[in-house]
Amino acid sequence: MKRILILGAGLSSSSLIKYLLDNAIENDWLVVVADQDLELAKLKIEGHERGEALKFDLFDEQMRADEIKKSDIVISMLPARFHYLIARNCVDHGVDMVTASYVSPEIKAMDEEAKSKGVLLLNEIGVDPGIDHMSAMQIIDRIRQKGGRLYNFESSTGGLVAPEYDNNPWNYKFTWNPRNVILAGQGVSQFLHNGRFKYIPYHKLFSRTEDVQILDLGDFEIYPNRDSLKYREIYGLENIDTMFRGTIRRKGYSEAWDVFVQLGLTDDTFIVEDSNHITYRKFINSFLPFDPDMRVESKICNILGLDEDSEIMQKIKWTGIFEEEVVGLENATPAQILQHLLESKWKLDPEDKDMIVMHHLFDYEIEGKHKHLTSTMVVKGTDQIHTAMSITVGVPAAIAVKLILNGQITRTGVQVPIVKDIYEPVMQELDTYGVRFIEKEVEVGSKVLSK
Amino acid sequence: MKRILILGAGLSSSSLIKYLLDNAIENDWLVVVADQDLELAKLKIEGHERGEALKFDLFDEQMRADEIKKSDIVISMLPARFHYLIARNCVDHGVDMVTASYVSPEIKAMDEEAKSKGVLLLNEIGVDPGIDHMSAMQIIDRIRQKGGRLYNFESSTGGLVAPEYDNNPWNYKFTWNPRNVILAGQGVSQFLHNGRFKYIPYHKLFSRTEDVQILDLGDFEIYPNRDSLKYREIYGLENIDTMFRGTIRRKGYSEAWDVFVQLGLTDDTFIVEDSNHITYRKFINSFLPFDPDMRVESKICNILGLDEDSEIMQKIKWTGIFEEEVVGLENATPAQILQHLLESKWKLDPEDKDMIVMHHLFDYEIEGKHKHLTSTMVVKGTDQIHTAMSITVGVPAAIAVKLILNGQITRTGVQVPIVKDIYEPVMQELDTYGVRFIEKEVEVGSKVLSK
Repeated sequence: MKRILILGAGLSSSSLIKYLLDNAIENDWLVVVADQDLELAKLKIEGHERGEALKFDLFDEQMRADEIKKSDIVISMLPARFHYLIARNCVDHGVDMVTASYVSPEIKAMDEEAKSKGVLLLNEIGVDPGIDHMSAMQIIDRIRQKGGRLYNFESSTGGLVAPEYDNNPWNYKFTWNPRNVILAGQGVSQFLHNGRFKYIPYHKLFSRTEDVQILDLGDFEIYPNRDSLKYREIYGLENIDTMFRGTIRRKGYSEAWDVFVQLGLTDDTFIVEDSNHITYRKFINSFLPFDPDMRVESKICNILGLDEDSEIMQKIKWTGIFEEEVVGLENATPAQILQHLLESKWKLDPEDKDMIVMHHLFDYEIEGKHKHLTSTMVVKGTDQIHTAMSITVGVPAAIAVKLILNGQITRTGVQVPIVKDIYEPVMQELDTYGVRFIEKEVEVGSKVLSK
Repeated sequence: MKRILILGAGLSSSSLIKYLLDNAIENDWLVVVADQDLELAKLKIEGHERGEALKFDLFDEQMRADEIKKSDIVISMLPARFHYLIARNCVDHGVDMVTASYVSPEIKAMDEEAKSKGVLLLNEIGVDPGIDHMSAMQIIDRIRQKGGRLYNFESSTGGLVAPEYDNNPWNYKFTWNPRNVILAGQGVSQFLHNGRFKYIPYHKLFSRTEDVQILDLGDFEIYPNRDSLKYREIYGLENIDTMFRGTIRRKGYSEAWDVFVQLGLTDDTFIVEDSNHITYRKFINSFLPFDPDMRVESKICNILGLDEDSEIMQKIKWTGIFEEEVVGLENATPAQILQHLLESKWKLDPEDKDMIVMHHLFDYEIEGKHKHLTSTMVVKGTDQIHTAMSITVGVPAAIAVKLILNGQITRTGVQVPIVKDIYEPVMQELDTYGVRFIEKEVEVGSKVLSK
């Protein structure tokens, strides 16, 4: 019997654990779910005969080493900053590891040692990163194989609320870590657009969106997602004209979010004075000029050139930020205060379902013809536990675990799923989970510029 | 004979060294000027009989300890990040130290030990910080002593070019570290305005200026200077309504500088692709949307809502940033590229003189009457060596050194010049160097709101 050790039993592990338990008897696995909260781990096992819950203390070095040594493979669903600790034990004891997080420099540095010990450290096999890599590389490799030359590549993903449950003016709810949503885009965004390098500072990001229609789902918008340039090397597209990665939101989200960005409410670098006792109205007013005669709402409209009855201002008002309600957070940054407010507003209701949208765009030349290809994935959650996010993050990792244990994936060292022997079988099985891409291709008259 | 050790013989040390040499014989001092560049140290000594030049290697621990041990007092004009190394030696060997820099946490931590050893570590005794503290505390203490209650305090400083040499559309030249000018204001600015806490993010800073007329020098503008709130505690003004510190520029500077800020050209956090070979025009274009049909200038005007023949755009054009001239800087950040461009444009010509303007504003109540008091200092440089910046940074520190050696300043521990026994004699002697404040006071009908 092979022993699978899952570290972390949080929301993002639900579909991962379910897949592994569902396949445990057939494949003769023992699935050990380890968490600092034993009850949570037990809950996820659901009394399955091949499941085992374990109270796990990450910082108990002896326990960590012992549990990893006993296992055939480890999946770390811990916060990304702890993966290197697990990877260290895995390399020491010859155990393979899988994560859905970006390769950290610490893990990258273990590549040679892992290879020499025959250990696989497979990372970035969730949704973003994960399905984005695999689904893009499938098409990139196919275009290459046919002798085509890809010149524009754009890839965008969004975690959203499913249209049936979309009932607020922002057309958005938190379906993942709220903090990441509040801080999204901070720093500079870099991409390559029709052969030109482009840099967008954070305070211009949400006014530089592109509109897009996706399948029959209606209107969306896309804003650039941090450093797209590094993907040229990762995907082997050094001579490409357009290399762009973006975040998808419903149309109208960004121009309203930009109000918070412009005023400075998403700042996470300083503590707001008396944050425990001020009201939200006082909070937002502290980012506006002093004026004894002007209402907060009017000052915002003045500074940002908005109409008080515009859709943008309606979205802002809906958040409750103009209310004289006490914040009640001690020593909080502006970003923390804004998150606190929105957590009550953008919460998924018990019956709500989420939706992940991924949209790739390829422009390429082949045999003198120019083709424009889009490839789109839409996944909706099945319930509150098996959300679209949980499915798309967890199932790819779980499939990879099966393929590793069955000897179908034989690579060693630090890997990401951009190679055919990994992405092909994973994508094939994902299809049975409703994780599939719809492709549309048209021939265009001549080389096209990216929008 | 007392031995004074000056570490660092750069531009900012010139007036400091001159003062100490001028007073060396009368006070029986030996003035040792230590620098990694021996020739520079020699140049500053000018063959004075009480001067001694020393080639100094900061990282030679033995030499550092030896030279400090031999001295009666040390003035560190090194980059601020090295002061704590010097302070460590000074405390170990019972030698007093003076710097013109902000107290660092490392130095603050030495307070008790310094006190127990009878060592004085006097910091922030330059111009800003330095003269700002002393001149403000003089008036704050005077108002308090008379029984007045101060409710608004604003204090602003600017390093500018003297009006007679002010001959470019920005009305600005570099008179100090250019890098600090490029990065000025990054992060959030915090102040207290008529009883309300105010926070301004960097990207709104240069559009939130206040105009001010200063003496007969004409129109200036002031933008907030980082964290003003901490000065409440430093100056003992915990219950004040307005606590504001600002930076002074000539009117019109900020709205033009804001173009660079809005586009993202002052970012110092990432490397521009191919920075060595691109032209300035390509550089600025990389912060603008792709558009095959529109000129760079038009794109800027479009995005920022400017007229192409506005004064703002004339200032931007004057910098040469629209020229097809190669940048020629390897692995440079946007801020470094912008600095490189402006260093050739905002350079002081050999005959140019600089000017420091400091402007305080006090509103206070006394015996039922309300008073509005301004206190203003204007210092112009005497030549290229003894600039206003060099005089106002170096002479206060030099006077303090004299007062310490003569036993007039007797404090120990970590100090800043906010106490009468330091600021009074220093300010008094500064007057003889033309460093003096002009006060204007008017009675106003009732309590006034700060602008």
